Amino acid sequence: MRIFSVDIGGTNIKAGLLDEVGNIYDYVEHPTPESGGPEAVASTILFIKDNIFGSDCAVDGVGVGVAGPVDSDGVVYSPPNFRGWGIIDLKSLLAELLEYPPSRIFVGNDASLAALAEFVRGNGKKANPMVMITIGTGIGGGILIDGKLLAGKSGFAGELGHMVIDPDGPRCGCGRRGCAEALIAHKGIVRTAWEVLRKDKGSIMWSLIEGRFDRLTPKVVQQAASLGDPAANKVLDIIARRMGTFLANVINIFNPEKIVIGGGIALWSDMIKKARIYAVRHALKPLSDDVRIVRARYIKMAGVVGAAIFAASSLTHSR
Amino acid sequence: MRIFSVDIGGTNIKAGLLDEVGNIYDYVEHPTPESGGPEAVASTILFIKDNIFGSDCAVDGVGVGVAGPVDSDGVVYSPPNFRGWGIIDLKSLLAELLEYPPSRIFVGNDASLAALAEFVRGNGKKANPMVMITIGTGIGGGILIDGKLLAGKSGFAGELGHMVIDPDGPRCGCGRRGCAEALIAHKGIVRTAWEVLRKDKGSIMWSLIEGRFDRLTPKVVQQAASLGDPAANKVLDIIARRMGTFLANVINIFNPEKIVIGGGIALWSDMIKKARIYAVRHALKPLSDDVRIVRARYIKMAGVVGAAIFAASSLTHSR
Repeated sequence: MRIFSVDIGGTNIKAGLLDEVGNIYDYVEHPTPESGGPEAVASTILFIKDNIFGSDCAVDGVGVGVAGPVDSDGVVYSPPNFRGWGIIDLKSLLAELLEYPPSRIFVGNDASLAALAEFVRGNGKKANPMVMITIGTGIGGGILIDGKLLAGKSGFAGELGHMVIDPDGPRCGCGRRGCAEALIAHKGIVRTAWEVLRKDKGSIMWSLIEGRFDRLTPKVVQQAASLGDPAANKVLDIIARRMGTFLANVINIFNPEKIVIGGGIALWSDMIKKARIYAVRHALKPLSDDVRIVRARYIKMAGVVGAAIFAASSLTHSR
Repeated sequence: MRIFSVDIGGTNIKAGLLDEVGNIYDYVEHPTPESGGPEAVASTILFIKDNIFGSDCAVDGVGVGVAGPVDSDGVVYSPPNFRGWGIIDLKSLLAELLEYPPSRIFVGNDASLAALAEFVRGNGKKANPMVMITIGTGIGGGILIDGKLLAGKSGFAGELGHMVIDPDGPRCGCGRRGCAEALIAHKGIVRTAWEVLRKDKGSIMWSLIEGRFDRLTPKVVQQAASLGDPAANKVLDIIARRMGTFLANVINIFNPEKIVIGGGIALWSDMIKKARIYAVRHALKPLSDDVRIVRARYIKMAGVVGAAIFAASSLTHSR
């Protein structure tokens, strides 16, 4: 089976030609258009398909992952990372533009599809339950129970990042205070780093960012921490503790066999190690014995691989 | 089918003779022995069976619910409400004492079984997903996905009460700070009421408790609130807000069709109404549209009914 697989992120659109088990035969990245809304994104996908993979490329199905709430009909609901999208019937829009039957287009939430990729051929293989948490710009979640993605009533389940873990915490994009996303994803790390940094003039981080706040990123903190900078290690510890609280909550809710951590944070092995220690210490005893907390196998490709597996298995089941 | 059904709680042991769909034909309550550990509890269950229902009462199976983590083999892990239990093979213990085949005894977590009761014949009927939250002395959770209880790797899933929602909150029995259980279950309500009460000498609550702190219960707060006492209404609002945060987290995680609230708190309709408003306001938009938050049908009998349904369906499937 040949699947045209697309992962629509806030920064990049990733696309590939894959087979039904997620082997990648072709892959390309293209910046996500900043304006023009969903139509501009759909046009970019058409452009990629026609100009990069060739217009004669026949595929058995199209799999699409998108960073936002998606229902089982392929309708996307006001994804926070895409300005002005509102409620968009993405499946129909793509069917029209690609001139492709909507019954062969499958749209899902990117974090859920990433979870599927890790379950089928990544580090979450066969775990039951398997919970995947993707921590990058935001926090996405995907849960597999008995090998099946937890969808919820309308396909929106798994918004683990919007779990309030501190009611006095910073404001989250969703409007609440102290969601895990606001505390331990990109912005949360930068905010915490800044709070620590401005009280510590001797930190290596100052020279790494050359005095410019806009250069302060989780990567800078990671780099400084690995060089033994006390301020950066303090940031690491604060974030790891919060992540431990968050992961312990997930353990107590799902009694998972595995938690797979993906996204940019997965590259920061000291962070994962520390958070794991806090999580296991804080979760209820019999549940903390059951869980393994591992890094994702896929960092960048998870969405594209998961979307292909999702499309292929949906096509197989609908036959 | 005749099922001998038992619900072992921290205060009372409830037992009944039920049929396979949870109709109750006989019912009795007995105080839980305070000392003597699991053997004393098992002896009490034998006493109930022999002396109250008659020793000749032949049953097709035994269903047991217990307030604590239970694995799929009927082993109970250090239930916090039973002092000195440790890890107990409750199924084997009961099989020996009742002289009954262990293959016909089914032990489960009381909150999970209560969820099953509400799903099969209570107010959660047919909802998918259905989340039941029982708020009383502690907080128990039971989740049904596609009509099946979420068990997790070893049967411990659904410990929703041990979700930290405020890291600066009071210490919970599990050792962490600010679990939902420590904030909105019995002790959390009493603690909050006391904090409000001691700053408000004019509150009706003072006369209701006749100046004695040990008489301060959630019921007193409820009563005073219904009489229009501003202090009691302040307590109601604080608890309802916290409950709203907790419920919004549950909505974002599971995208449930229904949340069923049981336990003593379910009798306090103003509390449920207020918490519902906060929850729906704070959850992510498409998910908050999906959910209905309702009171449980069963207050006292949920565990016994659920244990009978659980035993009967397990017997049917094992045939």
